[in-house]
Amino acid sequence: MKGKVYLVGAGPGDPELLTVKALRLLRTAEAVLHDDLVAPEILELIPPTAQIHNVGKRCGKKKILQGEINYLMVALAASGLRVIRLKGGDPLIFGRAGEEIESLRSNNIPFEIVPGVTSAMGAAAAAQIPLTHRQASSALVFITAHHSSERRASETDGGDWSKFVASGATLVIYMPGQNYPDLAKKLSAAGLAGDTPCAIISRATTRYQRTHRTTILHLHRTPQLASPTLLVVGDVVRLADPAAVVAAECAASEPSQLKGNVMPMTLHKTFLSQAAWPPANEEPIA
Amino acid sequence: MKGKVYLVGAGPGDPELLTVKALRLLRTAEAVLHDDLVAPEILELIPPTAQIHNVGKRCGKKKILQGEINYLMVALAASGLRVIRLKGGDPLIFGRAGEEIESLRSNNIPFEIVPGVTSAMGAAAAAQIPLTHRQASSALVFITAHHSSERRASETDGGDWSKFVASGATLVIYMPGQNYPDLAKKLSAAGLAGDTPCAIISRATTRYQRTHRTTILHLHRTPQLASPTLLVVGDVVRLADPAAVVAAECAASEPSQLKGNVMPMTLHKTFLSQAAWPPANEEPIA
Repeated sequence: MKGKVYLVGAGPGDPELLTVKALRLLRTAEAVLHDDLVAPEILELIPPTAQIHNVGKRCGKKKILQGEINYLMVALAASGLRVIRLKGGDPLIFGRAGEEIESLRSNNIPFEIVPGVTSAMGAAAAAQIPLTHRQASSALVFITAHHSSERRASETDGGDWSKFVASGATLVIYMPGQNYPDLAKKLSAAGLAGDTPCAIISRATTRYQRTHRTTILHLHRTPQLASPTLLVVGDVVRLADPAAVVAAECAASEPSQLKGNVMPMTLHKTFLSQAAWPPANEEPIA
Repeated sequence: MKGKVYLVGAGPGDPELLTVKALRLLRTAEAVLHDDLVAPEILELIPPTAQIHNVGKRCGKKKILQGEINYLMVALAASGLRVIRLKGGDPLIFGRAGEEIESLRSNNIPFEIVPGVTSAMGAAAAAQIPLTHRQASSALVFITAHHSSERRASETDGGDWSKFVASGATLVIYMPGQNYPDLAKKLSAAGLAGDTPCAIISRATTRYQRTHRTTILHLHRTPQLASPTLLVVGDVVRLADPAAVVAAECAASEPSQLKGNVMPMTLHKTFLSQAAWPPANEEPIA
């Protein structure tokens, strides 16, 4: 029996935001290689018989190299296992899937990509920010501020951002880090006005979700929020849920309020455990 | 009992790419307002007791206005129903959710946003295109080429595209339409080289999926593919699945085979097995 690799998006955090297909695959996995960003509630869906490898590179403690992940993935599949390579959000954005795909192809391992809800969509839905708007923004840009020695220096060059800023697009910055003064400086240098609204969404769609809404001018006063976070910049942020956001002034003066205000997530564990596909009374999808 | 509205993403097409949450909500819906882009297999999941309204604006036959959709949504929820506003892909991208949210808020209707797998992710997964790549693209831009009298003239201005092109980002053009010569002209005018690879993905993640891979130079010769389509432009397209793509020459010389409607993907793959891409002498991106 020949194994297979599924590159699967785990979505933004809430296990109910897994796709039906991802859920089905996780439940029948024989080996799972997952990132640090994948929520524990999602890992609990994996059968106890499956081997589970945390191949996250961002925890700072481990120094697993991309080549080692590729090797492990290929070796497990070559041994005949049904392998899930589970990535936070969608597998094809900022996840080095390109290198994993090349490795799978060159080793002749069958594979399939299962898209997921990317973090930007999870964060926007949770904070009720329409990412495009007829009157405010007709384009959407995903960039990353993540500094990594493995990436090209030019990728973190603030100069690149000025082009996106000039376009009037909504910017979504993945992995913005915690250095808000530096981020504010880069965004200003790129040409954004001080009163441009922005929002940091922390641990979107989980019960620990926080939204901090501010402007470029006040961005440096953002409290430290738990990762993963996402920064949304642009006029559309004005349309964010007024009840779910924290004014800059409040956040700066009362950081403890942010920490204490945990909104419980409605988890439908029963449904998750019962969700079968296809529904019993329906034809399977060809 | 007070009703509620759920703005729900239906994902890119494959019903298994619904989120678990979207599936749960659809199965308990009392009223559904859906776009034309939502696949029939997904609509079949709605209970027969629910009222279903097709409020799609793109079929050309109906002239339903956004204000009418807002009114219907509010009225149904105000009458106590559990209303699903079902949108193709993710609800917060190019879907005028902003206006619907404003309408719900001003009418004091409780609502919730359920993110979905956006079409770009579905198309990229199906065509095996990593949308970002360490060596090729560190940013991702979503724009639309959809011409609508309701949109601002500046949104369709090719001048805007030049900024994105200059950034080296992967471009994903939603609703590119069928006027490929015009699209090629706009992309060239924006500064893209003729040999820039691009791919049109038609009906991604459904059994009718087609991928046509070409370059800006040859884009005008693209066969007419069934909507919805999506255009991906950038170096990452070189990494697309070699077996699932169509060489420009093949497509141009045998349009009848491509137009001849709906071949299952597997047959399609067999038919295209000789369409080698990338050319053997072309180095893949490291």
